[in-house]
Amino acid sequence: MNNRGMLIILSGPSGSGKGTIVRQLLKQRDDTVLSVSVTTRAPRTGEREGVHYYFKTEQEFERLIENGELLEYAEYNGDYYGTPVKPVEKCVREGKNVILEIEVQGAEKVMDKREDIVSIFITAPSLTELERRLRRRGSETDASIEQRLKIARWELTRAFRYDYVVLNDEVPLAVERIQAIISAESMRFARMENFILEVINNA
Amino acid sequence: MNNRGMLIILSGPSGSGKGTIVRQLLKQRDDTVLSVSVTTRAPRTGEREGVHYYFKTEQEFERLIENGELLEYAEYNGDYYGTPVKPVEKCVREGKNVILEIEVQGAEKVMDKREDIVSIFITAPSLTELERRLRRRGSETDASIEQRLKIARWELTRAFRYDYVVLNDEVPLAVERIQAIISAESMRFARMENFILEVINNA
Repeated sequence: MNNRGMLIILSGPSGSGKGTIVRQLLKQRDDTVLSVSVTTRAPRTGEREGVHYYFKTEQEFERLIENGELLEYAEYNGDYYGTPVKPVEKCVREGKNVILEIEVQGAEKVMDKREDIVSIFITAPSLTELERRLRRRGSETDASIEQRLKIARWELTRAFRYDYVVLNDEVPLAVERIQAIISAESMRFARMENFILEVINNA
Repeated sequence: MNNRGMLIILSGPSGSGKGTIVRQLLKQRDDTVLSVSVTTRAPRTGEREGVHYYFKTEQEFERLIENGELLEYAEYNGDYYGTPVKPVEKCVREGKNVILEIEVQGAEKVMDKREDIVSIFITAPSLTELERRLRRRGSETDASIEQRLKIARWELTRAFRYDYVVLNDEVPLAVERIQAIISAESMRFARMENFILEVINNA
């Protein structure tokens, strides 16, 4: 079997539960890692270089952009955030699956750039449920929730860009669904070609 | 969710175990049925119309060919065998998955004709193991086993036509792998599009 890992995009609206799902999934699979982003934001207490982020100066970040070393990047609140291609490539070459947990806009930029991606869109069962989840966080104003729902509705219209749509009604079920997708994708002909050659050529 | 069933081809060399796998799979899924072939062969004791085969006269069979009502057909030992499209269509429309358990040549004819297929190639771990399985049947001469292995080697070179390759080292594992594929395929964007529209449009 081909032992290159897969590059997997997990995306979906804020409140879809993608963060929780990724954490559960990573606990279950030791062949899968999360891509670590690059940022110009200052480290917060407890954040470690190469674990939570790769911390860079603005000049360093701009050099990454110029050298085409980012799969995507964006600016929020005056800070850059991006997905560095080198660590992703290294892991994939070593046979690890790499998950990009990423916003819908960033996901599209990556999909525009690469073909060898398994892309998964995660959605709550309804916008009502999405709103309930956002309110439960208790950390946001009504106006900010309204804004997030508006964005969520737009993001749902972009689901057609993805290979798969996973319903997150309950986290363990959503994780199981993603496990099935990873399992199926590992059996795609392209990933089994070397194995088929072995079957043909060995005695 | 889109409630049209899937058309699934399960193919692979003689001795790959596809028959056993299909029987186990059908026990586990009541949303999935096996396509019943049409034949001009005389019914054997215990064989029932519409269960084991649809039995037709040669004239009737040739009319099916002329009317384009067969997804594929072939002649063995002076008898016709074919896959009728109408019952397949009916089941798929009713939301059932339909499995075509079919030889590699027939599978390619179906794939040439239709795009909306999930195609799975089943293989033993090695040609040695394939030979062992064929010998264990105890029903075939050395010459016929030699012939089957030669065909199997050719069939393995056609695996590139399939979406997925499933290793049948142990039947329960192979069945699990196919379950994962069916599960993943049911989450493809095209099959989730209606669901996404519901999420967007409901409150």
